Amino acid sequence: MVTKNQIKLVTSLQQKKYRTKHKLFVVEGKKSVRELLEAGCKVFGLFSDKPQEVHDFPNVEAVSASDMKQMSSQSSPSGILGVFHIPESEKIVTKDWVVALDSVRDPGNLGTIIRLCDWFGIEHLLCSLDTVDCYNPKVLQATMGSIARVNVVYTDLQEHLKNSGAPIYGAFMDGDVVYGKKLPEAGILVMGNEANGISKEIEALVSERIAIPQFGPETAESLNVATATAILLNEVRRD
Amino acid sequence: MVTKNQIKLVTSLQQKKYRTKHKLFVVEGKKSVRELLEAGCKVFGLFSDKPQEVHDFPNVEAVSASDMKQMSSQSSPSGILGVFHIPESEKIVTKDWVVALDSVRDPGNLGTIIRLCDWFGIEHLLCSLDTVDCYNPKVLQATMGSIARVNVVYTDLQEHLKNSGAPIYGAFMDGDVVYGKKLPEAGILVMGNEANGISKEIEALVSERIAIPQFGPETAESLNVATATAILLNEVRRD
Repeated sequence: MVTKNQIKLVTSLQQKKYRTKHKLFVVEGKKSVRELLEAGCKVFGLFSDKPQEVHDFPNVEAVSASDMKQMSSQSSPSGILGVFHIPESEKIVTKDWVVALDSVRDPGNLGTIIRLCDWFGIEHLLCSLDTVDCYNPKVLQATMGSIARVNVVYTDLQEHLKNSGAPIYGAFMDGDVVYGKKLPEAGILVMGNEANGISKEIEALVSERIAIPQFGPETAESLNVATATAILLNEVRRD
Repeated sequence: MVTKNQIKLVTSLQQKKYRTKHKLFVVEGKKSVRELLEAGCKVFGLFSDKPQEVHDFPNVEAVSASDMKQMSSQSSPSGILGVFHIPESEKIVTKDWVVALDSVRDPGNLGTIIRLCDWFGIEHLLCSLDTVDCYNPKVLQATMGSIARVNVVYTDLQEHLKNSGAPIYGAFMDGDVVYGKKLPEAGILVMGNEANGISKEIEALVSERIAIPQFGPETAESLNVATATAILLNEVRRD
């Protein structure tokens, strides 16, 4: 039986400080839980209020619907909730492209970008320390399990870029049109904050300023950071 | 002064049936209201609980904060709320690409796609009758004013495609790789439902099945429909 303390622990993991303290995070839904298990993520515990529906998962603890309601961050819990150990970030060793995020704040955007990295085979995602936490429940909901296959590293982005040695590409509204550019085999693609773009400190380290040209009337808003990342990763891979 | 009946009318517009009945919709936030005004959308009324902050808008009616709270669909109202007449859809006459959505249900996805059409200069967006309503408040929040510059037409998609005469491209997981294809000057790009993709009836009318190749491990989820649309519109325009 699930104890009050366990429920309290799981609920606390909706906040970053408790995720950091306990080195645990929560994922909900069959698909996402299964992908994390398949990727070898270390389980702390699996809980379900509909055990007959998840009999193919190992060691699931049955809980009441009201306990699940307390543990879940969703308004209608999906029937299975997994608590996993946060993996140690791997050191970035690659001869491929890396994506770096400078202060991306929206959980949906980060989730979508993690999913894009997975699709385009980008193994490492660098995040500035003020980028939203990738174990935030709303990020995990948007990643659809891709978090298990992308190595997300939070770091002092300025320091990292200074020492990287790789060509650094940054997305700017007024950068050079990306079409027709010969992109190298490896590099770092920096994407900026939703409202302010790439910060001055990071911009100073960018070797190539690139842009997706606008075809519509000039009044159009800038592209959302996740859709811009989609287009630029496609440009990197299609070459 | 705003009357109880006016408040009731504005609140009712959060539901599609009342938007259809009154042929009105609501937009919140300075930026979006301004863009609709600039695009020439016909105003029914502008309301603000912070009139000193919106003195550059014409004919704003001051309302109390509690009235605004009732009228707004947002948890923290942005200070200005505009009620506009739903424009008549224009007939689609174009020698350019058109995007067609087959049962896209998520408001955020539709909003992002409208914004993408605006960016890439796509004037007309066709929506199947079961696609989410483009005047849904969550759609409007994601469009960032682009709704004023894109002609969104709800129609029997099957009938429309049958009679269009244009080449019809559809996005499928197992379609032909889009890179290197010579895309025509004009065509229709069909994007499908979030869970099920393009329906059988519409698939039968598609002349070219295209795909964005996957570069990561084969376990990666499909791309989200909005990010896939971003990439394919970029492919259409970069040629």
